[in-house]
Amino acid sequence: MSLSALPGFRDVFPEALARRRQIFGVWREVAKRYGFEEYDGPPLEATDLYTRKSGDEIVGQLYRFEDKGGRDVALRPEMTPTLARMVAQRASALRKPIRWFSIPQLFRYERQQRGRLREHFQLNMDIIGEAGPLADAEVIGAAVDILRGLGFGPSEVRARVSDRRVLAELLGAEFGVGAEELHGVLAGLDKFDKSPEAAAEAVQQALAGDAQRAQAVMDLAGRLGEPGELLGRGAAAPLRECVDALGAMGLGAFVDVDFRIVRGLAYYTGIVFELFDAGRSLRAICGGGRYDALLKQIGGVDLPMVGFGMGDVVLGELIADRDGPPVAASPVQVFVATVGEDDRAAALALAHALRERGIGVEFALKKQALGKQLELAASRGATHAVVIGPDERAARQAVVRSLATKTETRVGLDALAGDYAF
Amino acid sequence: MSLSALPGFRDVFPEALARRRQIFGVWREVAKRYGFEEYDGPPLEATDLYTRKSGDEIVGQLYRFEDKGGRDVALRPEMTPTLARMVAQRASALRKPIRWFSIPQLFRYERQQRGRLREHFQLNMDIIGEAGPLADAEVIGAAVDILRGLGFGPSEVRARVSDRRVLAELLGAEFGVGAEELHGVLAGLDKFDKSPEAAAEAVQQALAGDAQRAQAVMDLAGRLGEPGELLGRGAAAPLRECVDALGAMGLGAFVDVDFRIVRGLAYYTGIVFELFDAGRSLRAICGGGRYDALLKQIGGVDLPMVGFGMGDVVLGELIADRDGPPVAASPVQVFVATVGEDDRAAALALAHALRERGIGVEFALKKQALGKQLELAASRGATHAVVIGPDERAARQAVVRSLATKTETRVGLDALAGDYAF
Repeated sequence: MSLSALPGFRDVFPEALARRRQIFGVWREVAKRYGFEEYDGPPLEATDLYTRKSGDEIVGQLYRFEDKGGRDVALRPEMTPTLARMVAQRASALRKPIRWFSIPQLFRYERQQRGRLREHFQLNMDIIGEAGPLADAEVIGAAVDILRGLGFGPSEVRARVSDRRVLAELLGAEFGVGAEELHGVLAGLDKFDKSPEAAAEAVQQALAGDAQRAQAVMDLAGRLGEPGELLGRGAAAPLRECVDALGAMGLGAFVDVDFRIVRGLAYYTGIVFELFDAGRSLRAICGGGRYDALLKQIGGVDLPMVGFGMGDVVLGELIADRDGPPVAASPVQVFVATVGEDDRAAALALAHALRERGIGVEFALKKQALGKQLELAASRGATHAVVIGPDERAARQAVVRSLATKTETRVGLDALAGDYAF
Repeated sequence: MSLSALPGFRDVFPEALARRRQIFGVWREVAKRYGFEEYDGPPLEATDLYTRKSGDEIVGQLYRFEDKGGRDVALRPEMTPTLARMVAQRASALRKPIRWFSIPQLFRYERQQRGRLREHFQLNMDIIGEAGPLADAEVIGAAVDILRGLGFGPSEVRARVSDRRVLAELLGAEFGVGAEELHGVLAGLDKFDKSPEAAAEAVQQALAGDAQRAQAVMDLAGRLGEPGELLGRGAAAPLRECVDALGAMGLGAFVDVDFRIVRGLAYYTGIVFELFDAGRSLRAICGGGRYDALLKQIGGVDLPMVGFGMGDVVLGELIADRDGPPVAASPVQVFVATVGEDDRAAALALAHALRERGIGVEFALKKQALGKQLELAASRGATHAVVIGPDERAARQAVVRSLATKTETRVGLDALAGDYAF
């Protein structure tokens, strides 16, 4: 009888759930401040929805099966196809720009590595229907503000921003890289950080084996981290506007222009960005950019789109590196205890009255000595015990005991049910 | 190119999501007040976890497949097996009674009927490690308080409470129904509300075709709605204690003792209950009870357990019957507008400062006439527009325009970034 979850899946005990709720809370709070509305979609979709967007490694990692109705279905590996489908349903009715976010659980059957799970939750924030760089600045700003909301500053977290259009212009003008070669070259450059050798090989392959051009591109790759001259090119105007906007928002200290960021996926068409921990000891915290052709490809509606995905796993590691492992935060603030069985009805009435005030309350569910009850109260992390005995009942009072200071005061039942401050 | 979700799955647009968050919010708030901690588990489990508990219709409705690693897996149709597995992992370390809740999404491939989906979200609240009837009262009280928290009173929602032990004693003492016949008879009685004929047939079958005893049981079935005499039996002592406790909590007006509630599933061992809309026009809002043998059966740990499941679908219908369909609540409170392009940097700084205050803010993402910007502001449901032009910038001010009253006032930028009350 196995007690474990499937490999790559998480059992989320209360302490881990508390950390997840901290992350989700900041995600929702920042999304709200930025004027984004929440949506959700099915975790199971027709497989066809994911294969419409071809050339993607995702398809090989699908949890895919045939349902009892003979449909080819898959657990969702990403949210964007569902978003595209939903937006397309209401494309003309929705006021543009559409600002939507969601927190789906996503599934991929990957070979397991440390910290690499087969499911995770991922915030998706997208602006649909606006092609200008202020939209890009909005979603990058929101991503940065989430990290700020979790207490991280510019010395801990960096946003690296780039624009594929600048690279495309440069590669075209200086090395004659055509549209048909571009994605292969960019996908190769994307590997540069991890392995310059693998990058060189991929670039040469994308250039039909032309070693001379490949070498020239790789020489360039080494200089992409210093954006100075590139940022002055004509194609960099949107990127400059985006970076300026982030500066005006007061977030400039977090932002590096870094043309080494190209994002591996073929569907990005403009500005791309990733957030990293400053020490680069973890994988990317978040990644996104502009994908203006995707909505048409998946949903048949021609609307520009920019957005990002931010998972709960790397974010959880970042917080754990700073704060240590999560601790359970007990919801119990007040423990109602009784002296004898005759006090039970009064205790139940008081417990319910305190709960009506929004206070987290527990009491012993069976006959127990007062000492045992107070022990349970302490183990739950309650700040106070409220004790009712025959004398207290007669006086319509209870004894409020601070579990920290061990001090006691008698308080009227009406005050306890009213506005008594624990 | 299909734009629809799979049959039985929901696309949750922002207005529907807002209602879901209303429901989830009350679920979490009441659970917290009752001292319950939240946990979560994987939506995909080994199929074996669900087949351990045999004799269940659930197994035939599983979304079941083989994963790429050759494992027989299934989308979770219910949370209790995962809970049992998780509790068993930490059975000795966890302080009893364990009060845990979760809000899983569950999946069943059922034939579709109106309002019958293939996925739903379900609040699960359980108390583990306490066999006494105060634990039952706690979970029933929490279920009732959730409905109260959503604004429903005793004339709209009823809790029907019963105890299988009373029926077992009665059926044994008066009709000689033995332990091996009991589940079949109870499962038959469970059908009585929907179809007395089907109930009679099932009961007779459970009694090996004995028409005389079956008739006697069915005569009894007609009288189970009037609990008077049954509630006086010795086996009804825990039920009386539970009902008294609910009365002491002030929830007695919601509670009916009704022995027609038996719950169809074999694993219930004591008190069982369901919540219904008073008019009985919908399916049960929630159902639960005591299942003291289940944790041992699934997780190998012998701990008593009582709990319930409450889905989001019927609850949503109940709210919609009262409040009408959900409406989108825009997160945008303040719209920041500019007179010209030169005002953009100041507008971005102000927008971000307002967001830092927790206010939902939007602004135009492209160059637009002021009138157009104010139109977008109104369509978002913003209460105020804040307009910045050259004169305002020079004076370090902005014009605050109420979109309801069309009145305008000039306010300093520092006050707007500070504590100005919109």
